[in-house]
Amino acid sequence: MTRVGIIGATGYTGIELVRLLLRHPKVRLTALTAEKNVGQPIWKLFPSILKEADLICQPLEVEPLSKACDFVFTALPHKAVMEVAPGFLEKGIKLVDLSADFRLTDPKVYEQWYEPHTAPHLLQEAVYGIPELHREEIKKARLVANPGCYPTSIILALAPALRNQLIDQRTIIADSKSGVSGAGRSAVLSSLFAEVSENFKAYKVAEHRHTPEIEQELSRLAGEKVIITFTPHLVPMKRGILSTIYASLRSPLSEKEILDLYQNFYAKERFVRVHPADLLPSTADVLGSNYCDLGLRVDKRNNRLILLSAIDNLVKGASGQAVQNMNLMLGFEESLSLEIVPLYP
Amino acid sequence: MTRVGIIGATGYTGIELVRLLLRHPKVRLTALTAEKNVGQPIWKLFPSILKEADLICQPLEVEPLSKACDFVFTALPHKAVMEVAPGFLEKGIKLVDLSADFRLTDPKVYEQWYEPHTAPHLLQEAVYGIPELHREEIKKARLVANPGCYPTSIILALAPALRNQLIDQRTIIADSKSGVSGAGRSAVLSSLFAEVSENFKAYKVAEHRHTPEIEQELSRLAGEKVIITFTPHLVPMKRGILSTIYASLRSPLSEKEILDLYQNFYAKERFVRVHPADLLPSTADVLGSNYCDLGLRVDKRNNRLILLSAIDNLVKGASGQAVQNMNLMLGFEESLSLEIVPLYP
Amino acid sequence: MTRVGIIGATGYTGIELVRLLLRHPKVRLTALTAEKNVGQPIWKLFPSILKEADLICQPLEVEPLSKACDFVFTALPHKAVMEVAPGFLEKGIKLVDLSADFRLTDPKVYEQWYEPHTAPHLLQEAVYGIPELHREEIKKARLVANPGCYPTSIILALAPALRNQLIDQRTIIADSKSGVSGAGRSAVLSSLFAEVSENFKAYKVAEHRHTPEIEQELSRLAGEKVIITFTPHLVPMKRGILSTIYASLRSPLSEKEILDLYQNFYAKERFVRVHPADLLPSTADVLGSNYCDLGLRVDKRNNRLILLSAIDNLVKGASGQAVQNMNLMLGFEESLSLEIVPLYP
Amino acid sequence: MTRVGIIGATGYTGIELVRLLLRHPKVRLTALTAEKNVGQPIWKLFPSILKEADLICQPLEVEPLSKACDFVFTALPHKAVMEVAPGFLEKGIKLVDLSADFRLTDPKVYEQWYEPHTAPHLLQEAVYGIPELHREEIKKARLVANPGCYPTSIILALAPALRNQLIDQRTIIADSKSGVSGAGRSAVLSSLFAEVSENFKAYKVAEHRHTPEIEQELSRLAGEKVIITFTPHLVPMKRGILSTIYASLRSPLSEKEILDLYQNFYAKERFVRVHPADLLPSTADVLGSNYCDLGLRVDKRNNRLILLSAIDNLVKGASGQAVQNMNLMLGFEESLSLEIVPLYP
Repeated sequence: MTRVGIIGATGYTGIELVRLLLRHPKVRLTALTAEKNVGQPIWKLFPSILKEADLICQPLEVEPLSKACDFVFTALPHKAVMEVAPGFLEKGIKLVDLSADFRLTDPKVYEQWYEPHTAPHLLQEAVYGIPELHREEIKKARLVANPGCYPTSIILALAPALRNQLIDQRTIIADSKSGVSGAGRSAVLSSLFAEVSENFKAYKVAEHRHTPEIEQELSRLAGEKVIITFTPHLVPMKRGILSTIYASLRSPLSEKEILDLYQNFYAKERFVRVHPADLLPSTADVLGSNYCDLGLRVDKRNNRLILLSAIDNLVKGASGQAVQNMNLMLGFEESLSLEIVPLYP
Repeated sequence: MTRVGIIGATGYTGIELVRLLLRHPKVRLTALTAEKNVGQPIWKLFPSILKEADLICQPLEVEPLSKACDFVFTALPHKAVMEVAPGFLEKGIKLVDLSADFRLTDPKVYEQWYEPHTAPHLLQEAVYGIPELHREEIKKARLVANPGCYPTSIILALAPALRNQLIDQRTIIADSKSGVSGAGRSAVLSSLFAEVSENFKAYKVAEHRHTPEIEQELSRLAGEKVIITFTPHLVPMKRGILSTIYASLRSPLSEKEILDLYQNFYAKERFVRVHPADLLPSTADVLGSNYCDLGLRVDKRNNRLILLSAIDNLVKGASGQAVQNMNLMLGFEESLSLEIVPLYP
Repeated sequence: MTRVGIIGATGYTGIELVRLLLRHPKVRLTALTAEKNVGQPIWKLFPSILKEADLICQPLEVEPLSKACDFVFTALPHKAVMEVAPGFLEKGIKLVDLSADFRLTDPKVYEQWYEPHTAPHLLQEAVYGIPELHREEIKKARLVANPGCYPTSIILALAPALRNQLIDQRTIIADSKSGVSGAGRSAVLSSLFAEVSENFKAYKVAEHRHTPEIEQELSRLAGEKVIITFTPHLVPMKRGILSTIYASLRSPLSEKEILDLYQNFYAKERFVRVHPADLLPSTADVLGSNYCDLGLRVDKRNNRLILLSAIDNLVKGASGQAVQNMNLMLGFEESLSLEIVPLYP
Repeated sequence: MTRVGIIGATGYTGIELVRLLLRHPKVRLTALTAEKNVGQPIWKLFPSILKEADLICQPLEVEPLSKACDFVFTALPHKAVMEVAPGFLEKGIKLVDLSADFRLTDPKVYEQWYEPHTAPHLLQEAVYGIPELHREEIKKARLVANPGCYPTSIILALAPALRNQLIDQRTIIADSKSGVSGAGRSAVLSSLFAEVSENFKAYKVAEHRHTPEIEQELSRLAGEKVIITFTPHLVPMKRGILSTIYASLRSPLSEKEILDLYQNFYAKERFVRVHPADLLPSTADVLGSNYCDLGLRVDKRNNRLILLSAIDNLVKGASGQAVQNMNLMLGFEESLSLEIVPLYP
């Protein structure tokens, strides 16, 4: 059994990692950190795992953690990770980071959207962890940058179109809608039930920090610089992202032609489901699972492709994909502990 | 007191008309029809108006209704209205129709998206009821076609940009999100709580029947044919529409320049609130009110305008706008019974 | 116009007072305090009232507020009010307090459930503000203690039964369920959307601070000491309280007999609706209104009375009742600005 | 692999059975019936299981089903089951019935609350399927009546108290609150999102059909006839039941004494979690899992015991418990396919 630790276990991605790892046949959770709850059993923070896990929250100290773990997930806010990741790597501990700290390859871009990077030497080494696109590199990596939730939904939707040069990349608009767990477990006014329920709104329009990450990966896929418009919205629900993505087709194609191409592209992927012509994805259909569901329509009247992409933001959009990456890095079967049937309704 | 009737009082727009008209200082509700509930007091169907209204549901018979009412609202499904509207008009009864039956001026377009029209002679006469754009015609009209909910949110958002030739109209994409009351009060599987809650999805992508209505009005504003892409989505909430609208600017303009233009355009309007630069609309901020809240951003990196438009789909998107139209048609002050402060939270 | 101030305008009861007072025909809002937002226009905190109110948030200073207002509402946390209320009263300013500070007549009971009281001399003077039970005293009062939300729903439901000696008061159990706005607008973990949505739970079982307040009023009604069991629960909704109340009947009575008695008891009340035999109250039927809806059933198999009571916790449970009290204190018609038809759906 | 069929697969308990059985290591789903969808693949009805299950919906015909299955679950409305169950049993097929048809041992009681029973000879044979109370009988049964959702939550909560004679059984009141999936997947007005969201109400007060089932089992536990008051409520959420249960203690006991007794009673149970003194159950903590979480408080001021019981109504309240029963009937380990960590948030 591989001994695994979670650095920052008290957020929603943390408890989701716990859920997934408790049923993993080849790993054992051996350490959890939670700065504000040191000494408390984890089930006090999350009674959902009462009788499931008895681990005590530890402080974030690289030395003892390195002895207790063979592998770690970092589920801290950005900036915090770049300070501790080098320590784990030096001890030979492989790591999947769920923050934004190692997603951008260019430290200047990181500085422009976040702040100066303190471990820029690791940016080139880190592998961007979408297994469907970078599987072989992930297998060899010791540091994987787990993608953001919005980027996962958008990149998987656009990959077949961009790789196949179907669309004019100057016309890409991603209109994304996310459940509130995406904002984390911080006690902030804008995440209160009474502020969110029966409410729908956009936020950080054309300025969300996931933009450079999306563009970096889309540019790789397209083979040239891609600039998009990205608008995130907040949906009154707990989990789920639906991205509606628009782009002009380079030349007229039928829905069926594009759908065939998409189904071929993802034919061997365990966690991507391309919907048949008469179905469209919805977030409820992926709840609790590692699936990314894709669908598409062509607006024939103006030759525009409309892509729809649904994920559970805490699973394929975060902790599930992180476990998928860990499985690859450790040479396990990719789907271990992720063979989850969505919870419906 | 003008005597007013509601034809089709048991849907959500029907009960919303009741709510608004019960407090109207110059009208009295004198008749309600509800085919399936003839003989029942309306509060049996909607206990929210217990002790507020004692009216008994009647059958839909033009003759007796024409004697009981000076003015009627038709809140029936499309097709049903075109069969009864001529009867009321012949009796000299003015009418606001909340269905789609008189919104399209061209009977061929109606037939293409709906079915053959049986009262095409009224299509030219009917006035499209957005008071902010067609106030003078509405004042003189005897038949007003109350706009659809999505069209109201989209047309009001685009009007200043199109009138002022700011945008390339070939690039317009309207990504709209609606609460579930927009689907009406029919007992259908897809509107069940357990199907909708914690779920977000698109539907009728690039084929929703509000498309021709939106394009008709946008074309009028632009002075040339406009074809858009329109994607409606279902939000797990009861009321509210937020439309996020994308279009390329013809020439670079700053956010401030466009915002000034919008604020001037709607400066005298009681029910349109253009948000200042640091605020964006959200559906909760218009709940229960007749407001249309507008906001905007420019994505400078690709010169794209992003418009945000929030309404309560049952008020400004339906019954509130219908009362606003009635006020104009009857020579009342436009805002009578509509001076409602949004309910927050 | 009476000049009115709101001390503590940034909570949910504060914005609800603003909503109601903006449409009051005989008062004008002249001052709002908000310690953390001094200098900001109120619409910055609540964009729902953009273009409705331009007032600037002030600091809480009795001297200038006394000059600007003829009447004040205090919507601060308990303890804060007892420190400022005496100052306003000394200046001749009448006051409705929405906190718990003046609800208990016995300072020892206050100390037992809260902390030592610093203005105990006012406890005897303060009138408990349920107009349906204490109307005449309220009219003469200069200080009214606005009841808690749970107490309002429970006391109004039990009043007819206790006054008429129908029930054994040792058997009273109140099982209450509240929407989340009842927890206020503080950014706390337990009020986050992702913690509350799709969740239902009890809290402060048999130890909630509203208990002594409920028992004080029930004891007055019964003419002897009443001890109840009170269990509050949190419902995943924004507004609304439903209380389900159980008590054993002293002697067998039919549902109809009790219902007649209830309807007579509240026959002249504008804001209490006793439901007919075939209807039961629900929170959606009172949304946004000042109604308290009551219903009842008799469990004949064990001679137990079951009362159901629904209010909007922010209206009849807080700000609406506060305005009702103000109307009485100022000699206005009791229902001014409160004639609101519930918003359905 | 045991071949298993689901009779009535298109309701919420049906799809939940599918979810659980698809991951069961010792069974294979070989037949699904759905009268209205014969010939359709099941994923068309539930896209959540796209690529997970390819089964085609069959008509309900005992003969072919008996050949395709070694074991069946009946998830039909009551009455429909008593007509087909005998057929399966005659063919030697064991059966867990999720309807109410075999839960009551006395056909007169069934007739009183439902209608005349057409297979009364099976009522004595059928075992009431709460494994924690009737494990040994279930192991030997060929027909298990799977308990109702409310009864499961109430009976498990009261069992230790009644077995140990802690409470006066004349004083039992069960105030239960359920998510909307409990009403099934029928397209009815009262289950619409716009009717349920932001709404809380009681229904079938003191007349719900689960009452006789609860009383039958409580009477067994108490060793004498128990009559309760039972009030179900509808919560605006999809899944989950919380029951708050009140009873007077026969003699004063401390919370700790009762808690110890409860923890001992359920010490060996895999799916019952008695909460420690400082925690109370909530429905979110059992979401998607087979747990029944129990907590308790004593209201010392009037010597009343308050029990709190949380389940997922579709798992421990229906399909999960059904699989637990199947595991016992087939000699499998009781927890197979039910070792699910709750989904939080």
